[in-house]
Amino acid sequence: MDRSEALTLVEPHLTKARFEHTKRVAETATKLAKMYGHDTIQADLAAIFHDYAKNRNKDELRQWIVKESLPQHLLSYHHELWHGPVGAILVKKELGIDNEAVLSAIRWHTTGKAGMSLLDKIVFLADYIEPGRQFPGVEEVRTVADNDLNLGCWLASRNTISFLMSKNQPIYPDTFHAYNDLLLQINKD
Amino acid sequence: MDRSEALTLVEPHLTKARFEHTKRVAETATKLAKMYGHDTIQADLAAIFHDYAKNRNKDELRQWIVKESLPQHLLSYHHELWHGPVGAILVKKELGIDNEAVLSAIRWHTTGKAGMSLLDKIVFLADYIEPGRQFPGVEEVRTVADNDLNLGCWLASRNTISFLMSKNQPIYPDTFHAYNDLLLQINKD
Repeated sequence: MDRSEALTLVEPHLTKARFEHTKRVAETATKLAKMYGHDTIQADLAAIFHDYAKNRNKDELRQWIVKESLPQHLLSYHHELWHGPVGAILVKKELGIDNEAVLSAIRWHTTGKAGMSLLDKIVFLADYIEPGRQFPGVEEVRTVADNDLNLGCWLASRNTISFLMSKNQPIYPDTFHAYNDLLLQINKD
Repeated sequence: MDRSEALTLVEPHLTKARFEHTKRVAETATKLAKMYGHDTIQADLAAIFHDYAKNRNKDELRQWIVKESLPQHLLSYHHELWHGPVGAILVKKELGIDNEAVLSAIRWHTTGKAGMSLLDKIVFLADYIEPGRQFPGVEEVRTVADNDLNLGCWLASRNTISFLMSKNQPIYPDTFHAYNDLLLQINKD
């Protein structure tokens, strides 16, 4: 599948703003892939599909979580976290994408997890720093991302946890595990 | 065992400053127990023993963790977290204390966990707010502790996570679980 075909497949499922975001994530992921030695075409495709389920309504996402035996504790956390795991299922079912590396990057792009692959990290970080993002701390993460992928991902996870705590929100366990695991990798580097 | 006997047993194992801290935690725990309807004598005793292993050296603590089949991942986290789990084992071995509620409160007083008992929460919070503690945010937690035990414990866990993140430290998973679980309980109240 080439990028133009991928974009054509994704566009009808997203709002205009979400589609623009998706294209920026894809450009950023391609740039990161080049910097950190990953296949750029695969990174581009994974990013193009990362938000495939983002604009499905909450009830549909909930139904997929129940039906597909995803971890049911997802339902106890903010619905913002549901579109990654459901997206990985839907691109397989509806578009026939079965590359496990791509599916993993889609699945974990919002929460992160311990033991992220290089592609998981690229999409996770590209989604956080794409040029349309504007929130406190993003500029620091952009700068770091140019030099240290693990440190960039760790800062993103730390900022996310801080933000959620400041809003009295629960933290999805895999986000915590990502924070600890990335810290371990940084300290080993 | 009465409190005077308990204090006599604990004193030789602690530095003078740690023993003074212990007595303040016991007074605070007794006050919280009275406020939240828990047996005050048991809360006092649990608090007296909570730091029993605090002044053992790191190597001894490490050996107990390995020997007693405590979760080995403890060794990947700061040694500050070791004295609670080891303390629960040593008060049983060396002093014959076998009350499971007391042992649990000793074990979890530093990290917290999901599903803390009333006594676990009392000792956890008393350790955080005893009058000798002086750090940013403690005064707010003291005020809250007079009205809402869960909210007090949650604020303590949130502050601990924030502090550790600001120091680029890993977070022990049970501390994250405590944060999420307490938040759930607060939102149910």
